[in-house]
Amino acid sequence: MAKVISTSFFIPLSRSDTQIPNQSSSLHIQSVIPSPRRRIPTSRQVVSPLRLRVRATVVIEKETPENERPETFLRSADESHSSAAESPSTVRARFERMIREAQDEVCAAIEAEDGIGKFREDVWSRPGGGGGISRVLQDGGVWEKAGVNVSVVYGVMPPEAYRAAKGGDSVEKPGPLPFFAAGISSVLHPKNPFAPTLHFNYRYFETDAPRDLPGAPKQWWFGGGTDLTPAYIFEEDVKHFHQVQKQACDKFDPSFYPKFKKWCDDYFLIKHRGERRGLGGIFFDDLNDFDQELLLAFATECAKSVVPAYVPIINRRKETPFTEQNKAWQQLRRGRYVEFNLVYDRGTTFGLKTGGRIESILVSLPLTARWEYDQKPEEGSEEWKLLDACINPKEWV
Amino acid sequence: MAKVISTSFFIPLSRSDTQIPNQSSSLHIQSVIPSPRRRIPTSRQVVSPLRLRVRATVVIEKETPENERPETFLRSADESHSSAAESPSTVRARFERMIREAQDEVCAAIEAEDGIGKFREDVWSRPGGGGGISRVLQDGGVWEKAGVNVSVVYGVMPPEAYRAAKGGDSVEKPGPLPFFAAGISSVLHPKNPFAPTLHFNYRYFETDAPRDLPGAPKQWWFGGGTDLTPAYIFEEDVKHFHQVQKQACDKFDPSFYPKFKKWCDDYFLIKHRGERRGLGGIFFDDLNDFDQELLLAFATECAKSVVPAYVPIINRRKETPFTEQNKAWQQLRRGRYVEFNLVYDRGTTFGLKTGGRIESILVSLPLTARWEYDQKPEEGSEEWKLLDACINPKEWV
Repeated sequence: MAKVISTSFFIPLSRSDTQIPNQSSSLHIQSVIPSPRRRIPTSRQVVSPLRLRVRATVVIEKETPENERPETFLRSADESHSSAAESPSTVRARFERMIREAQDEVCAAIEAEDGIGKFREDVWSRPGGGGGISRVLQDGGVWEKAGVNVSVVYGVMPPEAYRAAKGGDSVEKPGPLPFFAAGISSVLHPKNPFAPTLHFNYRYFETDAPRDLPGAPKQWWFGGGTDLTPAYIFEEDVKHFHQVQKQACDKFDPSFYPKFKKWCDDYFLIKHRGERRGLGGIFFDDLNDFDQELLLAFATECAKSVVPAYVPIINRRKETPFTEQNKAWQQLRRGRYVEFNLVYDRGTTFGLKTGGRIESILVSLPLTARWEYDQKPEEGSEEWKLLDACINPKEWV
Repeated sequence: MAKVISTSFFIPLSRSDTQIPNQSSSLHIQSVIPSPRRRIPTSRQVVSPLRLRVRATVVIEKETPENERPETFLRSADESHSSAAESPSTVRARFERMIREAQDEVCAAIEAEDGIGKFREDVWSRPGGGGGISRVLQDGGVWEKAGVNVSVVYGVMPPEAYRAAKGGDSVEKPGPLPFFAAGISSVLHPKNPFAPTLHFNYRYFETDAPRDLPGAPKQWWFGGGTDLTPAYIFEEDVKHFHQVQKQACDKFDPSFYPKFKKWCDDYFLIKHRGERRGLGGIFFDDLNDFDQELLLAFATECAKSVVPAYVPIINRRKETPFTEQNKAWQQLRRGRYVEFNLVYDRGTTFGLKTGGRIESILVSLPLTARWEYDQKPEEGSEEWKLLDACINPKEWV
């Protein structure tokens, strides 16, 4: 039967953090077109009809819509280190629990602050394990569009990817290798032009140990980040946001905030404009050179920092009076957001190429955006100050 | 000094028409960042501050803004086959004249039909020859955003590109080779959701004969197309549009319309959605397997067909009453337009990667666009009919 990969986050295979995945470094999937004449989606259909013909290397089963959230998307063997009920949970299980809790916590905080909008939920699973929950609040009281997604993917990666990921010039040649990936991904676009957009994403990736290479290890990585995209700068907001990120980082390693702050500024560059999409935060990818438990705790701390870093800012700005000009500028910045996500973002470009669940991937795009020809703010204006900070990243704490 | 390529159309190097250019098949340019701290653009600056560091293979001079349109952007040696005043014009010169006339003709027809909006003009040139004219009408009476650009580029291509372009398994190794490219590119987005968007683009590409390979020929290609993107189908409009394209094609070769109509349907596919951005028209690329004079006349006929194919449709639809729901659907389809242009369009993705004049490249994006989560039209509705025709291309004539 037709099979498509469906994942809304990027699976890291190398440490080249800003590279757009291409045929040599990313996973590919096999799929078939089931009939010569495609049915078009209607409001009664839930499953995306997308069928992509992509060179076969990774095969993931097609997702099935579910009416209820399952307790876990994990295969039962992944839930604990042994079959004994009292055995400790695996990192896979603890990471899934963490992102599910983070999704609940963020959605509850957003609904409470919004006052009007409610999240719609779509749940799907795959017969062999894995699945996801997409939650979207659209046209609320405060947010124009807010998406908070979690997903769990079981797939098989080509041996080249394992070797590239493991590094070194090993001559070992394992066969195709099963992998596990889980992540939470969210973009929150408010209506008020003085209230900033937030994005965060935390993910965990793990391969099985190759069976045909005795002693060869599992590989695992953490990735993620939280970043702020205002249309106007309120120094106290940006400082507060970065301060919370720094506090989360400092609990683990003093090198984390400066390193991940710069990584964020580098990653979110819209190269063709020479400007970042926003005012940054923290970003890290393919992280495995610290203790695994430390990184799990760090990712958890980062996810827990989302609400205290962001919601107080929205609370201050959500009712600020604004002009049509303020709104138009916000919309232009939303256009830049679209440019970054469609042209550069690894998760988005990877998801589009491999036939992921399109609606989950593109929920990051704003409800509305704008492109004016050759629009340039007056030097010294508030719009100019924002653009300057996007071109020349600043230290906020 | 800092040098950037600045071109708003794709330079064909191979016949793989739907492939997104990558590092192995496209041209690269050298550029420098002149100062560690970048100035940000203001309303007083005309020149884009873009400076990209890209692997050096093609070097094109930085553009200079001009106050007046020059008679020609050609180097004087390109204007005629010999220095004698009565000698016949080169194909380069005749193509430039054609696209300049087409720009004037289309802009005049758009202004006349719009009734309120006027085109703003930006002219630029390069010291060693080449340049361009961007004309944009924004927020007019009928059009939300209408861009009509011409440009002429002199550059140097790597020998690999010449060999790939020439085809065959030649072992000849010419040095870096000068090339010439000229084109007109236009996207016209009306306000009324019943009035369709139009895109057209015609371009000519020519290399010099390699000096170090006696007898090796010049290479040349024509490319282009005209396609229609409505949000709602009026059969008489789509039939009229395709009929005019077919008439232009049939004057030259009976194979042209069916071949280029299919090419268009294939090219404008938004792969991740399995749907086209619109209802097609004609598209061809890297065309050099017909007589050069015939193809020049064909491109000219196609460009001259733009106004009669499009303006009568706008005249019929520009004042049709519409609802908020109609407008929201148009805006969703504009979102699809953005997705195609930023993710797949060769000219756009090539331009963004090589540091072209960003405002000219992205003038194709609509003034406003919209993304709703999981929006699916009711089966049988007018919106559904449009989507069906984008998923399952139809024969209109």
